[in-house]
Amino acid sequence: MSIQEQMIEIARTARDAARQLATVSTVQKNKALAVLASLLRDSKQYLLQENEKDVVAARAQGQSAAFIDRLTMSSKVIDDMAAGIEDVMKLPDPVGEVTRLWRRPNGLLVGRKRIPLGVVAIIYESRPNVTIDAGILCLKSGNAVILRGGKEALHSNRALGTLMQQALEQADIPSTAAQVVPVTDRAAVLALLSLQQYIDVVIPRGGESLIATVYEHSRIPVIAHYKGVCHVFIDASADPSMAATIALNAKVQRPGVCNAMETLLVHEHFAERHLSWLLGQFRAAGVRLKGCECTRKFFPDVDPATEQDWYEEYLDLVLSVKVVGSIDEAIAHIHTYGSQHTDAIVTNSYENAQRFLNEVNSSVVLVNASTRFNDGGQLGLGAEIGISTSKIHAFGPMGLEELTTTKFIVYGNGQIRE
Amino acid sequence: MSIQEQMIEIARTARDAARQLATVSTVQKNKALAVLASLLRDSKQYLLQENEKDVVAARAQGQSAAFIDRLTMSSKVIDDMAAGIEDVMKLPDPVGEVTRLWRRPNGLLVGRKRIPLGVVAIIYESRPNVTIDAGILCLKSGNAVILRGGKEALHSNRALGTLMQQALEQADIPSTAAQVVPVTDRAAVLALLSLQQYIDVVIPRGGESLIATVYEHSRIPVIAHYKGVCHVFIDASADPSMAATIALNAKVQRPGVCNAMETLLVHEHFAERHLSWLLGQFRAAGVRLKGCECTRKFFPDVDPATEQDWYEEYLDLVLSVKVVGSIDEAIAHIHTYGSQHTDAIVTNSYENAQRFLNEVNSSVVLVNASTRFNDGGQLGLGAEIGISTSKIHAFGPMGLEELTTTKFIVYGNGQIRE
Repeated sequence: MSIQEQMIEIARTARDAARQLATVSTVQKNKALAVLASLLRDSKQYLLQENEKDVVAARAQGQSAAFIDRLTMSSKVIDDMAAGIEDVMKLPDPVGEVTRLWRRPNGLLVGRKRIPLGVVAIIYESRPNVTIDAGILCLKSGNAVILRGGKEALHSNRALGTLMQQALEQADIPSTAAQVVPVTDRAAVLALLSLQQYIDVVIPRGGESLIATVYEHSRIPVIAHYKGVCHVFIDASADPSMAATIALNAKVQRPGVCNAMETLLVHEHFAERHLSWLLGQFRAAGVRLKGCECTRKFFPDVDPATEQDWYEEYLDLVLSVKVVGSIDEAIAHIHTYGSQHTDAIVTNSYENAQRFLNEVNSSVVLVNASTRFNDGGQLGLGAEIGISTSKIHAFGPMGLEELTTTKFIVYGNGQIRE
Repeated sequence: MSIQEQMIEIARTARDAARQLATVSTVQKNKALAVLASLLRDSKQYLLQENEKDVVAARAQGQSAAFIDRLTMSSKVIDDMAAGIEDVMKLPDPVGEVTRLWRRPNGLLVGRKRIPLGVVAIIYESRPNVTIDAGILCLKSGNAVILRGGKEALHSNRALGTLMQQALEQADIPSTAAQVVPVTDRAAVLALLSLQQYIDVVIPRGGESLIATVYEHSRIPVIAHYKGVCHVFIDASADPSMAATIALNAKVQRPGVCNAMETLLVHEHFAERHLSWLLGQFRAAGVRLKGCECTRKFFPDVDPATEQDWYEEYLDLVLSVKVVGSIDEAIAHIHTYGSQHTDAIVTNSYENAQRFLNEVNSSVVLVNASTRFNDGGQLGLGAEIGISTSKIHAFGPMGLEELTTTKFIVYGNGQIRE
C-alpha cells in the first residue's frame, strides 16, 4: 500500500468508527477510559521501554534538553496520564444535550442538539502526553481521532495507541476510533490534509512552522493556536500592590507559555508614582526589560524597545514596557500589536473595566486577574485540547463542548412548506 | 495601485471599521438599516437604470433565462429588499449577550460573551439581492463585510454599495464597514483569499465550482454550503396520506433548491401496500422516476437507478426511489450516499423516530415534516446568510448568531495563578 492508500484506509475506517461512536452511551465511553487508565498503570514497564527507544535515538540525534524533556515518559508521567483520564471521566458528556427547543407558529418543535464533530485529526510534535490528552478528549466527546505525532516519538505513540485500542475493544467500541499514524514520512501528513471527505477538522498543536504547514496544505477546516502576544494594562487607578502581583505573575510564573504577558502597558499617572518601583521588582525577578522612551525616563537602565518588540512573543524572561496616556491608547496598542489571545486590565475604575471588557476582543479578557488564567482547566471547562486563536468555531480554550457541533432536530406532525 | 494593493486597502479599512462596529449600539445599527430601506425605496430609478446596464450586457452575452432572472432587479425586488431590511431590524442583536457566567473556586467570575466575527468576505454569483441580504446581516451582527459578487452584476452591486455606504455614514458608522469590490478580475478574489491577517471568515455562495475554488485557494477559514442530497424515509408505520403529502412537498414544491428531496426511501411493508399509489402521484406531478429493482416490481414503468443516482443532487423534477428492508438499511443508505444536509422520516413508531433523530447526523433531521423546512426563516432564526454543510462553526442554517463568536470575560479581584 502506498502512503496515500494507507492514510485513506485510516481515515475511512475512522469515519466508520465515528458513526458508531456518535451514539455510544456515556457509560460505555467512561468504561473505555477506566480500562485505559488501568492499562497505562499496568503497562508501565512496556511503555517505559518503548519510550526509552525514542529517547535514546533523540539523544543520539543531539536534540535539545527541552526536547528530550517533553519526549520522556517517567513512571510519574504515566501516573499523571492515568489521573488525567480519571478527571475526564468525571466531566459531563456534551453529546446529546439539547441546548434549546422552541415551538414554531406552524406547530413544529425545533431544537438544537449537540453531536460530535466526527473525525478529528491531531497533528503534533514529539510529545507522547498529547497522544493520551487528545485521544481521551476526542473519545469522551464521541469523535474518532487520528493521531499523528512527531516522528521522534513513534515508539511511544505506537505503544500508547495499542493500549487505547485495547481499551476501546474491551468497551465494545471499534478500535479504529483512535488510530496512531504509524508512518513518519511527511507525505502522510499531506495525504491526511487532503481527505476532506473523511476528516471533519484538523487541529495542529506545535510551533509556528507546523501550524503554517497545516494551514497551507489543508483542504479540511483547521482550528489552531497561533501566538500569544498578551498584555497587562495598569490603569491610573490601579492598586499598586495588586498591579505588581498580577503583572509579575503574568510574566514570571511560567514565561515560556502562550498566556504569559509579553508587553506591559502602564498609564502615565501610575507610572509617575510607581513605575520605577514596579520595574525594580521585574529586574529582581531576572526579567530583561525593553522600554519606550517614556519608560526609560522613569527607569533609565532599560534597553530601548523597537517597533518590532511590540509584535514579539518572547516566551522568555523578557518584557516590553510602554507608558500610555489613556485607556484609549492602551486599547489601540492592543488592537494594533496584539494577537487577540489574552489581555488584562488592572483598574479600580468601573467605567474603564467595562470599556476594556467591551472593546478588547481577545479570546480571554480579564479585569484584575493574571493573563495566566487563559486555560481550560482554570476557566472551568475541565481539560482542554488547545487554545484557538481563530474566531471560527471556537475562540479561546477548547474543552469537550468545543469538540462538538449542533444539528437541528425537528418534531412535526405532517407539516409541509406552503 | 495593483489589484493586490487595492484588495489590501479594502481589507485593512474593513478591519479598522470592524473594530468600531463591534461596539456600536443596536439602536445605531438599526438606524443605518432604516436609512438604507428608505434610500432603496427612494432610489428605485437609479437602481433600475444601473441594473439595466448589467441585464443588457448579460443578454448580449447570451446568458440563460434563469441567469437573467437572478440578475434582474424590478421595482418589486427592490421593495422586497427594503422589507427584508425592516425584518432584520426587528431581529434581536446577538452582540454583547453573555450566554453564561459562572464562579470559580478562587472567586473569579467567568463568562462567555458574544462578539462579532470581525471581517466577513462574501464571494457570490451575479445576484444583486445577495449584496443586500448579506450586507445587512453582517451589519446587524456587527461585522464589517467585503462583498464580491459576480462580474455580470457589477453596476447593480456598485449602486447598492453606494446606498449602503450612505446609510452607514448617516448613522455615524464608518462607510468602510460595507464595501463592494469594484474589481471583476479573478485576481481580486485570489488576493482577498490570502489576506488572513485582515479577514476572519470567507463565505462563498454559489455553485460547486465557485466553492471549490474558494476552498482550494483560501488561507482564511471558509464556511460553505456544499450540496444537498436529501432523503425522506417512509417507515412501515407511516400514515399513507401524511407520507404522500410530505414526500410530494419535499420534491415538487421547489425542486431546484438544496433542501428538496432527491431520494425517497420506502420501507418494504409500506411499499407493498402503497408504493404504486404513491409513485403514481409523483408521476402525475411531472416527476421523472428512477428506481431500485424492488421499486420496479411495484411500479414497473420506471427507469432503473444506477449506483451514481444515489449520490445525485438533481435539483430538478427527478427522483430516485429505493425500497429498504428496515430502518437500519435506510440509515445506512443515508450515511453512505447522503450529504449530511437534510433528512426526514415519516413514521408512527416512537422508537424509530428517536432512532432516526439520534443516528442521522445531518444538519437538519426531521420527523413527520418536509425537508423544505431547512431554512433559517422557517426554523425561527430570522434571516439566514446561508446553510453550512461543514460541521465547523455552524452546521445548518446560519443566522445572526452564527455570524458571531464568543470571547471569555473574567472579573477578578487580584487573582493570580499559583
